[in-house]
Amino acid sequence: MARSQDPFSKLHKRSLRIAKLQSIRALLEWDLETYLPKAAGGFRSDQLELLAEEIHKELTSNSYKKALNNFIDIETGKIQGDYPPHLQKAAKEYRKNYLQEMKLPTSFVKKFTKTTSTALPAWDQAKKTNNFSLFAPHLEKIVLLCKKKADLLGYKEHPYDALLDLYEPDLTVKTLTPLFNELKTALTSLLAQIKQKPLPSPLTGHFPKEAQDKLSSYILEKMGFSKETSRLDLSSHPFCTGIHPLDIRMTTRIDPSCPLSSLYSVLHEGGHGLYHQNLPIEHYGTPLCDAISYGIDESQSRLWETIIGKSRAFCHFIHPTLQQLFPEALSHLSTEELYKKVNRVIPSEIRVESDEVTYSLHIILRFEIEKELIEGTLSVKDIPEVWNEKMQTYLGITPSYASKGCLQDVHWAMGGIGYFPSYTLGNLLAAQLFSTIKKAFPDWDKKVQQGEFSFLSTWLKEKIHCHGKLYTASEVIQQVTGKPLGVKDYITYLTEKHL
Amino acid sequence: MARSQDPFSKLHKRSLRIAKLQSIRALLEWDLETYLPKAAGGFRSDQLELLAEEIHKELTSNSYKKALNNFIDIETGKIQGDYPPHLQKAAKEYRKNYLQEMKLPTSFVKKFTKTTSTALPAWDQAKKTNNFSLFAPHLEKIVLLCKKKADLLGYKEHPYDALLDLYEPDLTVKTLTPLFNELKTALTSLLAQIKQKPLPSPLTGHFPKEAQDKLSSYILEKMGFSKETSRLDLSSHPFCTGIHPLDIRMTTRIDPSCPLSSLYSVLHEGGHGLYHQNLPIEHYGTPLCDAISYGIDESQSRLWETIIGKSRAFCHFIHPTLQQLFPEALSHLSTEELYKKVNRVIPSEIRVESDEVTYSLHIILRFEIEKELIEGTLSVKDIPEVWNEKMQTYLGITPSYASKGCLQDVHWAMGGIGYFPSYTLGNLLAAQLFSTIKKAFPDWDKKVQQGEFSFLSTWLKEKIHCHGKLYTASEVIQQVTGKPLGVKDYITYLTEKHL
Repeated sequence: MARSQDPFSKLHKRSLRIAKLQSIRALLEWDLETYLPKAAGGFRSDQLELLAEEIHKELTSNSYKKALNNFIDIETGKIQGDYPPHLQKAAKEYRKNYLQEMKLPTSFVKKFTKTTSTALPAWDQAKKTNNFSLFAPHLEKIVLLCKKKADLLGYKEHPYDALLDLYEPDLTVKTLTPLFNELKTALTSLLAQIKQKPLPSPLTGHFPKEAQDKLSSYILEKMGFSKETSRLDLSSHPFCTGIHPLDIRMTTRIDPSCPLSSLYSVLHEGGHGLYHQNLPIEHYGTPLCDAISYGIDESQSRLWETIIGKSRAFCHFIHPTLQQLFPEALSHLSTEELYKKVNRVIPSEIRVESDEVTYSLHIILRFEIEKELIEGTLSVKDIPEVWNEKMQTYLGITPSYASKGCLQDVHWAMGGIGYFPSYTLGNLLAAQLFSTIKKAFPDWDKKVQQGEFSFLSTWLKEKIHCHGKLYTASEVIQQVTGKPLGVKDYITYLTEKHL
Repeated sequence: MARSQDPFSKLHKRSLRIAKLQSIRALLEWDLETYLPKAAGGFRSDQLELLAEEIHKELTSNSYKKALNNFIDIETGKIQGDYPPHLQKAAKEYRKNYLQEMKLPTSFVKKFTKTTSTALPAWDQAKKTNNFSLFAPHLEKIVLLCKKKADLLGYKEHPYDALLDLYEPDLTVKTLTPLFNELKTALTSLLAQIKQKPLPSPLTGHFPKEAQDKLSSYILEKMGFSKETSRLDLSSHPFCTGIHPLDIRMTTRIDPSCPLSSLYSVLHEGGHGLYHQNLPIEHYGTPLCDAISYGIDESQSRLWETIIGKSRAFCHFIHPTLQQLFPEALSHLSTEELYKKVNRVIPSEIRVESDEVTYSLHIILRFEIEKELIEGTLSVKDIPEVWNEKMQTYLGITPSYASKGCLQDVHWAMGGIGYFPSYTLGNLLAAQLFSTIKKAFPDWDKKVQQGEFSFLSTWLKEKIHCHGKLYTASEVIQQVTGKPLGVKDYITYLTEKHL
């Protein structure tokens, strides 16, 4: 890629070591969620802590700083030498990551980790006993630490911007607020109209685990995964981790009373998996071999899960397979009935069980609460009340318990304030990509109906995946869809489909 | 355990970090054999190499040396301060491990690793094509490197002693040779007599994987394993790795044409597993929380696998379960027939498929060849001929191919010359322990027949496991069995059972 002893290569050697340590950490985290014997949980934390320390030590060492500074001036951002554009971009990302790492002192990181480690079991207990007050004092500490984090990281306009930046480098409260307001108005209006229509009954029956396993394998194979480079396991919460482009691990969860939960988890995690599998392996160990942002990553999973997976064409494709795998439960189900059932819109207390129409309202609610917490205009103790009011206003329902309301998600206990908006950005972008895809492949639905998905995976690979982090989120969205991120395509998609 | 800032505690903090890195390496190796997507094999080597380097760097650092030297004088072995006996033993082991690590220069370790990395695929190819000459030049290099290794490590009498010491710290060629000669004479004579008796037919039929899985779980549960602290997976070669006393991972291999292969693998790996589960967790991160030697470890697995697992009492215990799990294949099999079948003695070309009578002859053959290779009295090119001659003399068979002869085992390609004797030491000690167990528990067979194994696991834990590396192999053998290691009990056990 470059001369063996030039500044880039020297830095790359160091960052490659860090990437390998991170990949080892990813494997330990995967194992934690899949196969680790329960009693070894404490020891696993020790192992993970050791790796985190090692990574932090390396990133903040004098020798790393020197190697980085020889490639790009840390102070000014001036690249030291004549490099091709992709290495210039790498230089900027290296510097950005470094500055971010250095802004958070080790003592702060330790305090943050300790606070969330204590908060997690408290949240778990609060959720189990439906008692918000058990979690509230921990959340207060976390909010304070997140404010401190924002101050340490720095921001121009709003402290929340600093937290957002960790997940969505291109976005700010200023751009997000009108986008989410527009979305909120459109979605609540759409939901009101959908509520006037008859509600299809849910899918019921018994769907044996073995047949669901076969379904999962079949879907992944159809998406283009090979067992040589990927695997699927079970975990209580489905996820995907790209340990390396040649080692993509996805998980699902099997519910014997409904095969759709696992089917759509597999499509979702498969969307992430394709992205991480197709990252530019030749740049492994540099920031170029990373996903652009959480939102771009989520757009890939949501495109496969909802827009493709819940299309009429996909239902035509999967219907015979479902009937073959579950003859007893599904012999009398027509394709159209299947389509209606998978697209059932009904407000739910629980975010992760939501349909594609109401999902983003859950996110907007969380974004608004987070923003006010960080601004200091909302107190932790008032969250349950505000939560329930917003749920009633946006979704027309009031959670029966705090456990099904503001205690349902783990993100805050993990200190992940700023993360939620990425979920909705993923939805918006997936719809915007879909508009482009329909133009590029007018017969997309015929292909999908025939179980022919390679047109899509190849297109996504060429347009997005293979560039890794060469472009910013805004650049990629503009290049691929011809316009900046907006809510129009998403609203149009939902309206055309559900009205 | 000691004051927080005393020399031991300072050293312990460092060695704890090394132990954690080693535990991470163990997890990566487990994953390599169980779940790693094939294409990621090369990347897994990179990850393992990084961990090996990190461990070596830490062990050979000046700061580690200083911490060690403050606890025990590296030069003289004098312990620096007043410590209880277990920490005095720990000090000696710390020093021994350190000296061993320092005796092998990094350049040598790298050359050794590189040579075996190249030898492994060559051995694989040679085995597949039945062509010893493909492997011979690699083995020549490995023998030279092992000689060099022996010189670097140092020895008093025989260079092979230095290699043996890596696996069996207490043993030398001088003690092993007469032991093995006595064993060889006794076993060949016993085998000749057994050959006069009628040979039972092997177990045949179809044994579905699911039922075999149930059998494995049942056995592990009966041995006292909990899913909270252990697990069982599949791999092409069964093994056990103690990632931590709270994270014991065993594997087995399922052959649908015979359930005995997995049954006895599970008992074998379970024997190792109990040992590693019961190591003194309070000393984790010190050498006291290690197994004493490969031979002691193997005695645990062989005791459960052969002496207990192939006893008439065990057959009585497992017979109804086998009939219940495999009704079609086993409905007409009597307990006595089962006992005869699991104790079928027939010389095999393949070591790992051997019965308990002929197994040790395979090991003695390898020991003799290894010793001569290291002495320089045997050339690599002559191995196939010598191998076949010895096979004919000791076992009365001549391997049909080199692949089923001197190419069958991976150990030499891995550079593991000196390892094989541990297998037989395990057999000898298992029989010697069994003599003691029979005296301590005259009704052992009644308990086993009732599936009551806790008397045995508790006894092994108290007598051996919980001490970790507090005593040497010789000390433990003397303490527990009242005499030094010998062949008598083993021969008596085999003779009484098989004649």
